[in-house]
Formats: sequence, C-alpha cells, structure tokens
Amino acid sequence: MAQDKKTIRLLFPQWQGGNNPDYVFGGELLAQIAPKSNTDETFEVEVDTDFEKKLEVENGLTGGDVISEQMEKTAAILEEQQPDKIIIFGGDCSMDQVPFDYLSGKYGDKLGILWLDAHPDIATKNDSTNVHEMVAANLLGKGAPQFVTEVKNPVSLSHMMYAGLIEKDLRDRDKLVKELNVRFVGPDELKGNSRPIIDWIEENKIEYLAVHFDLDVLSPKDFRSIYPAEPYTKAEDFPAAVGEMKLVEVVRVLNDVSVKADIVGLGIAEHLPWDAINLRKALSEISIFNN
Amino acid sequence: MAQDKKTIRLLFPQWQGGNNPDYVFGGELLAQIAPKSNTDETFEVEVDTDFEKKLEVENGLTGGDVISEQMEKTAAILEEQQPDKIIIFGGDCSMDQVPFDYLSGKYGDKLGILWLDAHPDIATKNDSTNVHEMVAANLLGKGAPQFVTEVKNPVSLSHMMYAGLIEKDLRDRDKLVKELNVRFVGPDELKGNSRPIIDWIEENKIEYLAVHFDLDVLSPKDFRSIYPAEPYTKAEDFPAAVGEMKLVEVVRVLNDVSVKADIVGLGIAEHLPWDAINLRKALSEISIFNN
Repeated sequence: MAQDKKTIRLLFPQWQGGNNPDYVFGGELLAQIAPKSNTDETFEVEVDTDFEKKLEVENGLTGGDVISEQMEKTAAILEEQQPDKIIIFGGDCSMDQVPFDYLSGKYGDKLGILWLDAHPDIATKNDSTNVHEMVAANLLGKGAPQFVTEVKNPVSLSHMMYAGLIEKDLRDRDKLVKELNVRFVGPDELKGNSRPIIDWIEENKIEYLAVHFDLDVLSPKDFRSIYPAEPYTKAEDFPAAVGEMKLVEVVRVLNDVSVKADIVGLGIAEHLPWDAINLRKALSEISIFNN
Repeated sequence: MAQDKKTIRLLFPQWQGGNNPDYVFGGELLAQIAPKSNTDETFEVEVDTDFEKKLEVENGLTGGDVISEQMEKTAAILEEQQPDKIIIFGGDCSMDQVPFDYLSGKYGDKLGILWLDAHPDIATKNDSTNVHEMVAANLLGKGAPQFVTEVKNPVSLSHMMYAGLIEKDLRDRDKLVKELNVRFVGPDELKGNSRPIIDWIEENKIEYLAVHFDLDVLSPKDFRSIYPAEPYTKAEDFPAAVGEMKLVEVVRVLNDVSVKADIVGLGIAEHLPWDAINLRKALSEISIFNN
C-alpha cells in the first residue's frame, strides 16, 4: 500500500509565529537529523530571515503579514505537488497549519489530528498575538475567520485529540480546551499503553492521522533540545507547562496508532538544539572560521 | 594576510579509534553546525561504517588496520591539496593525528599544539588498545614507532601544551604527562585570563597553532553533546575525568592566543549529540519515515 503513495518532506522553518529566530537553524538541523530517504523529495519554504527587523503586530498577529506570505508559499507547493503524505520540519508550531488543512481537505472526515504537545495551542486573537499558540484553534475553525487564522477545511471537534498535554498547567488562554471539551490524554495515562488514543480513533472511525509533534511534549530529562532545557535554566522555573513524555513513549504511541490508522502527516516543531546553536556561535567567533 | 592562505575543511568521522559508531553521525552533524564558508572547500574522508563487524585488535590497536587505511586517505588529501590551514570535524580524537603531523611538517618548530581536553590522550600501546587515547603521545613521537602510531614530524615537548586538563583525575595510562613534564593548565587557572598559554607561546617563539578541541573539555552543564552528559546518567558517575570549561571561555582563550599566534589547525572531536542520535533513531521507527 505504502509504495504507491507520494510522500514529500517540507522544511518550513517559520519562526515568526513564536518570534524566535533560533527556530530557523533548529529546523534546518532537524532536516539533517531525520532519517535519509531515497524516495521522499524535500521542499524548502523560504522564510524571511531579517532578524534585525522588529516584527510588528499586524491585524492582531505578531509578524502577521510575513506569516501569511509564507503560508501561501506552503499552500502553493502542496497544491502543485499533491502529496498523499507530508513530513514537516519546523519551525514553530504554526508550520503545521497549512499542511494539516491540506490533509483535511484531502481525507475529509476520515482524518484525525493527534496533537502531541505539553500545550494546547488553542488561543485566539483575544488571548494572544502569537500565531504558534493558535494553530489548533485555527484548525478547528475557532480562530477569527480572516487572515492567516483561517483554514479552508476545519476539522470537527471529535476529530482532534491532545496527547501529553499537561492539564494542571492550562492557562487562561488555553480555556477553549475545556469550553469546547476537546479530548485529551496526559503523559501518565500513556505510560503503560496507547488505549486512550486507540479508543478515540475507533469511536470516530478515523482512518488517517496527521500528527503534530511539538518536541516540548518531551521531558527535559529525556530530550534537551527544547525551550525549557536551555543550559543554566531550571525546568521548574519555566513560565509554561513542561513536557513529561519520553521519546520511546512517543514512538510506541505512534506505532500503536499506526495499526489502526495511516499516519499521513507528521510535523516536528520547536526544535531548539542549544548545543548546536551555542557551538555555531562560538565557532563563528574563532579566527580560523573567518578567513 | 588571511586572504592569501588556503583553508580546507576535513570531515573525518573516524570512530574506530574510540570504538564508538556514534562518532560518525556526530561528525556529520558537526560539519552542518559549523558556520558556513564561501571559500573553504570541504573534503570528506570516507570511513568504514560496517558497525556490525566487531573491531579486532591488530598489532595492539583496536581496528588498527582500518584506522591505518583511513589515515592514509587523509594524508593523501593533504598531500594533494597542500592547505595552509585545516579545520577538522571528528570523529574520535585520533582524527587530528595526520592533519597535525602535516602542519608540523609545514611550519616546523614555529608550530605549537594546544590540546583542549579533559584527558591527555598520551597513552601508549603498553597502556591501551584505543588509538584515541594515544594521539598526543604519537604526535610527540612517544608512541611505538610503527604502524598508525608513527608520525613523520613529531613536535618537541616544549611545543605542546594541555588546557582544561583535569589533573586530579589523571590515571595510570596518563603517566607520561608527569614523566615527560608536559606543560598544562587546568580549567580554574583559565577562568580569568589566558596568560598561562600566552606565556608558553612567547617563551617558545610559537607563531602558528594547531588546536585540538575535544568537546569533552567542556562542562556537561554548559554543553550536553558529550559522553558524560548522556541523558539519565550522572556526570559524577562517569568513569573518567569530566570537563569543567565553558564554551565562552574556550572562545576567549582562542581569541587571546590568536593575537600572538595564527591558528592554522582546529580539530573538533568526540561530538555526541545525544538528542539528535536519539531523535533520528526514534523517527526511523515511525511508519511515515519508512515508505
């Protein structure tokens, strides 16, 4: 079955949605870290890298105009390539909006979105100006219906589920999780088995899955290339929820769900490889690298 | 002055000297992390990646034959390219032997070797079978005079200095440091200034420097892509010396010495990017990466 499907890889190091330039190098490195493929072609969505220019709030969104342009470029690539499956290397979490919208258009109500994240990314323009906090709301059609927040093929509430979400640290801007009663499962319930997600897939007759994998769903003890694991900072001082899953648990969950539904989208987001970032900066200051 | 010198980059992910296949991916990623250059050409020394095959001890050295072949390939590249300056991406510490031998041949007694490392790498075949523990001894002409341990242009004792060495954790196999009275400076003495190294440069009329930068000279708190910083292990349980320097200190030292001597060689060794290694393995087990 797999062989006759077309998979493409998108390198989309959009950083403006989280207003953090380090996501660009993080995304580029992610594309190098990923297992090589002889068949999947990689397309890079060029992003504005004028880091000196302060991002303005446009139409209520930080960097709104440039994000809009970059999302249009992404849509154009998908429109032309018409892939069956998409791997996305981010970038901040907003990089999954257009590819998941495309997959929703392609697979309709057979598609479910599994959101692996310590945070629900379900804010609206009433709560935030950062697009990376809004992507899930947008995909559910709950974002303000204009501009970059608008998706063409919103998924129904029953077809989205969070995994690894830290419920106790939900903030005011995350309130739609409870108001809309979006399904979620925390890290503890996934330690032993993947049943809560399998149940959701079966109950909703989901056949295809788009998986958003925000690396910060992982514990800083397990994986350090994430925001709360910056050297010389303590995870307990981090001003937002900190993930608690392990990489091996994420792999087990995705293998378990693969038996029930075909993973047709996988976006890996918010890679902050501190050692690589700091080492590149250090080397750039040494004479032999400046001939 | 710099513009008329030819700098090349060598990607030499030799892993057999430390008997650790992870050094291959570590080296490849290091070449991606390094600042880009428009002028420096990169040459890759292909290494045997048959990781399934157990390395035999040949002539007293683990993987001796294949290391010998790989070093010969490196020498051939340098012979043909005749660079003035060399950046080397390792690989285990043994990857610096041939390039530093070449630089010693080129610059003679105007060259000094600065060895940034928590360990002295000064064992001989009496103490070890691992080539990455012997490189400094070899460059000093103190290794057994045969096979891969032999260098053409040994440097004199006065022209080698250790920095960041952890003296209290010197082991029996490190005894030549004291027996030969090789100069060294520990991490504490380098916190405030680089004077001990400047003194060595001035006293010995060193004009050119080859710098061996074993990343494990760094503290696991500062930089986690090294052996003693593996997730779920404690640095205090590591069975060898653990580094104590910071990246910013290494940069300051190298900038300070650059005023006195031209850095013509820089080898970066033993990169173990745990997050990248574990993430690549995890992704390779997920269905969408196996189409």
